Amino acid sequence: MTDVLVLNGPNLGRLGAREPEVYGELNMESLTQSCQKWGTELGLNVETRQTDDEAELVSWLHEAVDTGRAVVLNPAAFTHYSYALRDAAAQVTDAGIPLIEVHLTNPATREVFRHTSVISAVSRGTIAGFGFGSYRLALSALKS
Amino acid sequence: MTDVLVLNGPNLGRLGAREPEVYGELNMESLTQSCQKWGTELGLNVETRQTDDEAELVSWLHEAVDTGRAVVLNPAAFTHYSYALRDAAAQVTDAGIPLIEVHLTNPATREVFRHTSVISAVSRGTIAGFGFGSYRLALSALKS
Amino acid sequence: MTDVLVLNGPNLGRLGAREPEVYGELNMESLTQSCQKWGTELGLNVETRQTDDEAELVSWLHEAVDTGRAVVLNPAAFTHYSYALRDAAAQVTDAGIPLIEVHLTNPATREVFRHTSVISAVSRGTIAGFGFGSYRLALSALKS
Amino acid sequence: MTDVLVLNGPNLGRLGAREPEVYGELNMESLTQSCQKWGTELGLNVETRQTDDEAELVSWLHEAVDTGRAVVLNPAAFTHYSYALRDAAAQVTDAGIPLIEVHLTNPATREVFRHTSVISAVSRGTIAGFGFGSYRLALSALKS
Amino acid sequence: MTDVLVLNGPNLGRLGAREPEVYGELNMESLTQSCQKWGTELGLNVETRQTDDEAELVSWLHEAVDTGRAVVLNPAAFTHYSYALRDAAAQVTDAGIPLIEVHLTNPATREVFRHTSVISAVSRGTIAGFGFGSYRLALSALKS
Amino acid sequence: MTDVLVLNGPNLGRLGAREPEVYGELNMESLTQSCQKWGTELGLNVETRQTDDEAELVSWLHEAVDTGRAVVLNPAAFTHYSYALRDAAAQVTDAGIPLIEVHLTNPATREVFRHTSVISAVSRGTIAGFGFGSYRLALSALKS
Amino acid sequence: MTDVLVLNGPNLGRLGAREPEVYGELNMESLTQSCQKWGTELGLNVETRQTDDEAELVSWLHEAVDTGRAVVLNPAAFTHYSYALRDAAAQVTDAGIPLIEVHLTNPATREVFRHTSVISAVSRGTIAGFGFGSYRLALSALKS
Amino acid sequence: MTDVLVLNGPNLGRLGAREPEVYGELNMESLTQSCQKWGTELGLNVETRQTDDEAELVSWLHEAVDTGRAVVLNPAAFTHYSYALRDAAAQVTDAGIPLIEVHLTNPATREVFRHTSVISAVSRGTIAGFGFGSYRLALSALKS
Amino acid sequence: MTDVLVLNGPNLGRLGAREPEVYGELNMESLTQSCQKWGTELGLNVETRQTDDEAELVSWLHEAVDTGRAVVLNPAAFTHYSYALRDAAAQVTDAGIPLIEVHLTNPATREVFRHTSVISAVSRGTIAGFGFGSYRLALSALKS
Amino acid sequence: MTDVLVLNGPNLGRLGAREPEVYGELNMESLTQSCQKWGTELGLNVETRQTDDEAELVSWLHEAVDTGRAVVLNPAAFTHYSYALRDAAAQVTDAGIPLIEVHLTNPATREVFRHTSVISAVSRGTIAGFGFGSYRLALSALKS
Amino acid sequence: MTDVLVLNGPNLGRLGAREPEVYGELNMESLTQSCQKWGTELGLNVETRQTDDEAELVSWLHEAVDTGRAVVLNPAAFTHYSYALRDAAAQVTDAGIPLIEVHLTNPATREVFRHTSVISAVSRGTIAGFGFGSYRLALSALKS
Amino acid sequence: MTDVLVLNGPNLGRLGAREPEVYGELNMESLTQSCQKWGTELGLNVETRQTDDEAELVSWLHEAVDTGRAVVLNPAAFTHYSYALRDAAAQVTDAGIPLIEVHLTNPATREVFRHTSVISAVSRGTIAGFGFGSYRLALSALKS
Repeated sequence: MTDVLVLNGPNLGRLGAREPEVYGELNMESLTQSCQKWGTELGLNVETRQTDDEAELVSWLHEAVDTGRAVVLNPAAFTHYSYALRDAAAQVTDAGIPLIEVHLTNPATREVFRHTSVISAVSRGTIAGFGFGSYRLALSALKS
Repeated sequence: MTDVLVLNGPNLGRLGAREPEVYGELNMESLTQSCQKWGTELGLNVETRQTDDEAELVSWLHEAVDTGRAVVLNPAAFTHYSYALRDAAAQVTDAGIPLIEVHLTNPATREVFRHTSVISAVSRGTIAGFGFGSYRLALSALKS
Repeated sequence: MTDVLVLNGPNLGRLGAREPEVYGELNMESLTQSCQKWGTELGLNVETRQTDDEAELVSWLHEAVDTGRAVVLNPAAFTHYSYALRDAAAQVTDAGIPLIEVHLTNPATREVFRHTSVISAVSRGTIAGFGFGSYRLALSALKS
Repeated sequence: MTDVLVLNGPNLGRLGAREPEVYGELNMESLTQSCQKWGTELGLNVETRQTDDEAELVSWLHEAVDTGRAVVLNPAAFTHYSYALRDAAAQVTDAGIPLIEVHLTNPATREVFRHTSVISAVSRGTIAGFGFGSYRLALSALKS
Repeated sequence: MTDVLVLNGPNLGRLGAREPEVYGELNMESLTQSCQKWGTELGLNVETRQTDDEAELVSWLHEAVDTGRAVVLNPAAFTHYSYALRDAAAQVTDAGIPLIEVHLTNPATREVFRHTSVISAVSRGTIAGFGFGSYRLALSALKS
Repeated sequence: MTDVLVLNGPNLGRLGAREPEVYGELNMESLTQSCQKWGTELGLNVETRQTDDEAELVSWLHEAVDTGRAVVLNPAAFTHYSYALRDAAAQVTDAGIPLIEVHLTNPATREVFRHTSVISAVSRGTIAGFGFGSYRLALSALKS
Repeated sequence: MTDVLVLNGPNLGRLGAREPEVYGELNMESLTQSCQKWGTELGLNVETRQTDDEAELVSWLHEAVDTGRAVVLNPAAFTHYSYALRDAAAQVTDAGIPLIEVHLTNPATREVFRHTSVISAVSRGTIAGFGFGSYRLALSALKS
Repeated sequence: MTDVLVLNGPNLGRLGAREPEVYGELNMESLTQSCQKWGTELGLNVETRQTDDEAELVSWLHEAVDTGRAVVLNPAAFTHYSYALRDAAAQVTDAGIPLIEVHLTNPATREVFRHTSVISAVSRGTIAGFGFGSYRLALSALKS
Repeated sequence: MTDVLVLNGPNLGRLGAREPEVYGELNMESLTQSCQKWGTELGLNVETRQTDDEAELVSWLHEAVDTGRAVVLNPAAFTHYSYALRDAAAQVTDAGIPLIEVHLTNPATREVFRHTSVISAVSRGTIAGFGFGSYRLALSALKS
Repeated sequence: MTDVLVLNGPNLGRLGAREPEVYGELNMESLTQSCQKWGTELGLNVETRQTDDEAELVSWLHEAVDTGRAVVLNPAAFTHYSYALRDAAAQVTDAGIPLIEVHLTNPATREVFRHTSVISAVSRGTIAGFGFGSYRLALSALKS
Repeated sequence: MTDVLVLNGPNLGRLGAREPEVYGELNMESLTQSCQKWGTELGLNVETRQTDDEAELVSWLHEAVDTGRAVVLNPAAFTHYSYALRDAAAQVTDAGIPLIEVHLTNPATREVFRHTSVISAVSRGTIAGFGFGSYRLALSALKS
Repeated sequence: MTDVLVLNGPNLGRLGAREPEVYGELNMESLTQSCQKWGTELGLNVETRQTDDEAELVSWLHEAVDTGRAVVLNPAAFTHYSYALRDAAAQVTDAGIPLIEVHLTNPATREVFRHTSVISAVSRGTIAGFGFGSYRLALSALKS
């Protein structure tokens, strides 16, 4: 049974509190439950985490390397500037472990600064724009 | 039963012949069959097409609007410059019909010109980097 | 009696179907009739065509050169990237035949990519922002 | 009967003296007379003015708002940098009064700095490249 | 008792007439009265002026240098391009006289061209986004 | 009585130790006391905090949303790159709670990288260049 | 005997009709004959084609791959934007088949947009500026 | 005897009051006298003027055209943005009348925005960096 | 005996685990030991630390100021965006304490984003490209 | 019999020693001999030279003008920055003497800085990517 | 009696041979004689030199420093890229010796690359556009 | 015993004469002696040279390749534009011979043009900011 870390970056713990007209009323708790459920359906052992802290997110990617767990990563605002996160993500990919970048919304339809990702070039692939569904698809991609 | 058009842009008919080290040995025929199979599994009525012709691709998007069919679009090289395709895709999205942009490979890992998509801003979401799997995920996204 | 070709680029055949909040509910058929009517009033022999195909639009400009017909050109999305169209338009202008670039809307009020025209530098002049009226004014400009 | 202000920016009072190979030998006086004549034909009450002074041109736009007169504006060199003029023009447009930007020549065929207009985005439309005819077409556009 | 010139640039005389959804219904007269009142409360001798004319605004800054009066300056559209105003403002600052740049709205939330100020680098500080309150805060800053 | 969080970013705890020729000899302790005093005068309940930690600063903005406290934010170096902070600040503003960006010095007179703020666009307004006075003015702005 | 496809892009069928001061009075027919003659001299089996249609040009490159024919390609205006053509040309090069980019004129002496080629990076080499001679040299290069 | 207009732009009337560490203690009066004296020595009929007003400076260039007087122009801050002044200067040059751009200081040693002149391209030549001497040299250049 | 802090930024704790083809198989432990040994040889009291946490790295630089210890800093990915780190490093340099920026590899041979350092301008000097040797050289530089 | 100077820029004397995987094992001596041979075949009097010295290369172009000899020029690294060479090459072209720019490799496939040539705009044409064959083609172009 | 070195850069030895339509038929010999004559008139001891060699030009600037001679420098094409020349020129200026940059033509009216000078920022002033007169004016500037 | 060439570029022969406030009073002679001494201590056979001539510096790098000597290179102003030097340096590196780029000062603290090095990407590493110490460290790096 494949182990998967679903890792979420800054402000995602505020889902539901934050810009509900953009993200819907779903929150981190329901995301965690959904990923759990989808994991069970797909035969994946899923653990969902969230942090606003760059160093902690970096450490979780280190943990993924050490434990050989696949990663579904929503870097949130770190997407656009955290080269520290990029270097950590590169270690995952370099170790032959799949890392998938996901976004709830489609960044191309939002502010210009969101059109740039410093993470994409070191991820296997990107899924963006499907709300919680982005995570479901990423888990499904890991299964196949 | 939802109808889906899986539309493929220039040079994708050459899959297998072209840069096999990048795309694998799969070809358009096997992609068509795979999409057919995935559609059946998902309860989607899938039709897969390919063209090197910008005007034909544009006309298929018009057809999607007129017939209310969802679209999975791999714009291939048109991704980077065809504003004609963008305007056609915008009509699909404006009509409330889902249009998902897919890519076989992860453009962020390739030449700089491939980092820009003129299509993304008028699509519901983007899925890139999973080979044929990108299509499977897109069909799955349409189902949910 | 001066002969005029009113040539329309990609997606303009979808007028009415496409973004009605931007373009109004008028369509290519009514545009054709309006141009016909305005032509009659002005003593111009007007023929209106539309195509989504870059090569066809290019060929119509070649035809304009060969038949000495003036051109009213709405390049639509081709405005922003089709250097093939530009080279064809340059032939019209170089032949001393007037070519007027028209736009239904005012591109300066829309997306940034629409602020650049590769056609303007080889046209006699530009008329933008008056809906179907842009065509009426262009025909009137040809008459004077 | 609609009232129209035809407003001309810096150096346009020198028409005839200035770069005759570009603008022809017509001058501000004959432009004024032509606009007068075209206005009569169209049933428009036209007043033509010219100034080299940015503040005066701004004040005339204020006057247009206060008197509800439509505006045909040739901003001349102010086109490229006068945000003061832009803000004044925006007031006209925001008041629901049509403001049309005109140019004697086609800026796209001249120096690079002339390719940028800070006025276009707050005008209803643009007409460029038809000499005095640009004004005639603008007046005609106001009539329809 | 400190003397203060509150100087306002182009189109600000139109407050109330112009974009009321952005600036509120307050006008230059009420701004003048408010500044007068705030000055009295703060023990400042305040004089409020407005002009659409770059040269006049420049001359008022010269006057500030010659009379040793502090300056609250809302350069309005001149903010973005008037190096003449900048050079005049630099004289105020070089003379050891405080000059504070104020804006009614927050330029960072408006068009891109409003994100650049050629005045800021020669002002003591900037206050933006508080409507008439920006002036009250600036006067208060001069008092302390 | 309005509650206000005065939040300070990285290196501001070093005020007095750091670049005294730029910031003066005042330190975080005296800033805290000053804000306390100004709050009392204005009838505001002020709490002043400082952190070098991006995640902690983000969490304080979350706290502001949850407790409905207004925010005076000096993002210090985070001003120029922390989109995580921006997203958190946007939540404050989206919740209808005033957030004011302050700076001790005038960034426009310092290095080029300090001329860009990723925070300004999601703040109500900006006050820069008045030393501790920037905070006094911000508190005063919240009062009015 | 080596087989060679001499492929010409948009507007080249108009040689002679178009900008004779730039290209001379030679036309596509005489180019075809010249290439035929040079091929015979060099022992190459040359076939010359021209199209204004991007998709057709793309298909001819596919044909070159399938039939193992070398390519002399004048992409004309497609040079500057057709990534579809680039991807097709890359297939030729990837297949180990020589593809040579030719231009009648020297693009470096013409408009700025002509200084960029999206084709060069996937061609073996480039020959520009020798009129029909560019083709003769390219054929000669294939022979050696 | 050649007639010369020595024209000075914004803030130059403040010479002596403004940035004496940069410009020295000389003022517009002494500049006028110096130019008068140098003119007498050179056999030139010199008239020196200064204005902060763009429109007035433009009108003086018109006057130069109409009276055939040579121009020594210090555009001051207008150097960097006044295309209105540029168009007026172009009329002088187009009329075959020499126009020389002068600067007291060397702009290349000052702020970046001062490195760009929109006037240079329409002047006969430029002299910068010699204080009042720049004017003496310009007058001398007109004599030869 | 001079005290030295050797400070290492994000992901450097993973040396050996991360991209061994780039960095070799040496790890943070062996780096710590090497620096200890080199310090002993040079008569320097060396303490080596590593953190993935921006705030912690900032605090260590504060500590260097307070304890007067020289700094050898490998900012790793923070090199490219952490202005918070830059401000902290500037405090070290402003205090007259030497701070040397080191890199294991030569950033100029890697991705474009690694060519920019926001730290260099506030460091005494830079040493890059010598693996662990970069640290040895930096310690040696501190000794001399 | 036409005289031709084949001129080679910096580091080309090291052919064979330098980057053999890029340039092959051929050297300047064999290039000289090949050009000699091709010249004989074509009836051209060819002299081949190489220098690392910009001034010497410039002087050889002066010599070409004075002796009326055609030039085949491989500017090597000077291609990208030597405006001195450009000015010298312009003299050749302005004298009506053909000058052809050649490159051994295809610059478009190498580093970005090699994509720019300051020489191309003053040469008759360019031939790149054919190894020594580039010279053979250039000589052949001179013959025709 | 002041000693002056008049130093001329690459291709200036070709004056008369090169682009006579731009520079006139005057040559380096007549320039040398003219400078000699003007020096005598002004009481300056003038020596005129020319070289195509960057290192020699650099050495002449070193000589100027060592012998305390003023410099009139026409850097020709080196103007646009030779930082070696700039560093040498800076030594002249830093030694308190006047160095004046001259150009025969007005660079602002020529190619874009000629609009940038890397020398200006380390020269006392610039004189451009007066043919040989630029040198006369520079010598005159040194005298005053 | 390893042989090392210490190569110095333009203007470095003027050390001591040039900008002593930046470089100290040390000169090329004392640098030569210091390198000699450090070499002896390290067991390296060091030869120090300086030239203002690009071609000579290039030839010394060729010599390094031919004699297998390591290189310490201070390219001085050539750092920023000499691609000829870069190509020569690349030959050293490609031959497996270490080449280290050194700078006396820290370029990141000086003019913007000094922030770019065209040499770094083909050197093993860079050492900057330690005065003569940069050379000592480079020699030490070669020893280890």
